[in-house]
Amino acid sequence: MLEVSLEVGVGMLSIEDIWEAAERIDSVVHATPVVQCEAIDDRCQANVLLKCENLQKVGAFKARGASNAILSLSDKQAQRGVVTHSSGNHAQAVAFAARSRGIPAYIVMPRDSPSVKRRAVEGYGGQITLCEPTQAAREKACAEIQKRTSAALIHPYAEERVMAGQGTVGLELMAQVEDLHAVLVPVSGGGLVSGIATAIKALRPEVAVIGVEPAGADDATRSWTTGELQGNTKPQTIADGLRANLGELNFEILQERVDDMWTVKEESIVEAMRWIFQRAKMVVEPSGAVALAGLMEHGVVRLQFEGPGRPNVGVVVSGGNIDLEPFFELLLPKVQA
Amino acid sequence: MLEVSLEVGVGMLSIEDIWEAAERIDSVVHATPVVQCEAIDDRCQANVLLKCENLQKVGAFKARGASNAILSLSDKQAQRGVVTHSSGNHAQAVAFAARSRGIPAYIVMPRDSPSVKRRAVEGYGGQITLCEPTQAAREKACAEIQKRTSAALIHPYAEERVMAGQGTVGLELMAQVEDLHAVLVPVSGGGLVSGIATAIKALRPEVAVIGVEPAGADDATRSWTTGELQGNTKPQTIADGLRANLGELNFEILQERVDDMWTVKEESIVEAMRWIFQRAKMVVEPSGAVALAGLMEHGVVRLQFEGPGRPNVGVVVSGGNIDLEPFFELLLPKVQA
Repeated sequence: MLEVSLEVGVGMLSIEDIWEAAERIDSVVHATPVVQCEAIDDRCQANVLLKCENLQKVGAFKARGASNAILSLSDKQAQRGVVTHSSGNHAQAVAFAARSRGIPAYIVMPRDSPSVKRRAVEGYGGQITLCEPTQAAREKACAEIQKRTSAALIHPYAEERVMAGQGTVGLELMAQVEDLHAVLVPVSGGGLVSGIATAIKALRPEVAVIGVEPAGADDATRSWTTGELQGNTKPQTIADGLRANLGELNFEILQERVDDMWTVKEESIVEAMRWIFQRAKMVVEPSGAVALAGLMEHGVVRLQFEGPGRPNVGVVVSGGNIDLEPFFELLLPKVQA
Repeated sequence: MLEVSLEVGVGMLSIEDIWEAAERIDSVVHATPVVQCEAIDDRCQANVLLKCENLQKVGAFKARGASNAILSLSDKQAQRGVVTHSSGNHAQAVAFAARSRGIPAYIVMPRDSPSVKRRAVEGYGGQITLCEPTQAAREKACAEIQKRTSAALIHPYAEERVMAGQGTVGLELMAQVEDLHAVLVPVSGGGLVSGIATAIKALRPEVAVIGVEPAGADDATRSWTTGELQGNTKPQTIADGLRANLGELNFEILQERVDDMWTVKEESIVEAMRWIFQRAKMVVEPSGAVALAGLMEHGVVRLQFEGPGRPNVGVVVSGGNIDLEPFFELLLPKVQA
């Protein structure tokens, strides 16, 4: 039987929020598989349990949080639609979740977003407003749409309903894998790690929850280490989904419920991508490979596991939205020859 | 209950051979998942059930046939090892299966095989002999090794034990999917389609079994259509796994048990790869995408399904061994910048 620790979750995101989210989004999103690959296990000297959110609807865990937030709206609120600004997976997730509730989604995207991402949002029926590629312009465009439509703002991470939705990844993983020793989670704004850590610390406090960040966008690690919320001045990483600053709400949860924060080099991210593509035969975006990169770079030794055998390590593969067109263009000359 | 049709399988590969193979290889290979992807379903107007042999050991269905053949050897035969010539997935499969039985594998590979494929064979402990890249040189090198070692030759497709092993794909698919309307299978030498067609026609003769080939290597289609075994003079296709000629044994089975043969254009193969990579988020090699290419190019209309709803179509994704290094090299400049 699972033991519920009642000390955790008073006054902030709680396990009850996550249980409710799980019920709410059950018919809208996938329960994603856990994949294990012998070659990766041997490389890491661990049972590496890849939690495949790259196989989630819209290709990323973001579908969970957006769906929970949008399904939580009252009918009256929902009618007016939802709005967000994002150039990435959250934009698609909001458009997807709004469509599944049959309400309008207004998505503010910077003018320089790749056309493939715009098409994906349009594919889910999202109504795009382009703006200058600055934070100020994005927020201004959002505010204007809200004023005009009274649409509800769906924040990508600093909102309880969104965090609760992401936390369902942790619930599922605990149900899928017995005897977890640790769970590694990529960190950006902190929505995913907040949700997962809340679920795990409530139900299995002995399981270590470790956040992993690119060294070139390590604001959450610095914040967690110093106890003061810090930002990235100029994030430099191939992991385009992990460049946002840690949210304030997320920072509080991180401090209380995350056991360690690790950073990884860019080379480790690419190495982890290679293993996932070539051995697990799955498509992963750079951000989605960061947790595995952590295990590969720091090694199972940092998990302080004291045998026997290998530890069971959950590794969240957060998304698979990477532009593969350059690769297909390399293939095309062969086809035309 | 499943009904066993006794007319089928007298004097050639039988369902009993495949049942025995399934038992023999059970602990050595994976029972691969069936994956369904909404976007692909909508594109094809069918429930497309991707049978994921790209997630098989060694990254291709070949692990099944090689394992069955090698586990069928007597201890005395096995001690002397096994030999084959192949530049592709069969080479890895034989090395893998020999290792799992703890016996030597001698693999003849043409001098011009990519180093990535050689390394994979060596990774499974195979002993490589390089030869000139001609059929004659390959067979000669094999014969010399057989003379020296008395190793057993494991043919890639024209051998009953190999076909029986590949047939377990069909058994699994029938157990995983109820009410199949048709199954699409890529065809090269014919080992995979022989095994699958034998399993399906014995247990569910009403399910259509359709072989799919690149138009640039359409010997099996021409053989099936004319009733006379024909070869490829100069196969031209990106699907490097589908350039071999149909085997004689395989031709007999094809004539008796395969309902239709389709060919596909090169562009359709790349289109199918795009859908599998970008929407199903899986890595697939060109040959592995040929069955889906068939459904995309010919359409569900050619399956003569008479509603209601959409037909359940099994599509064998035969392998995922594609060299992704060019793609990672495109990513590296970003990392070093």
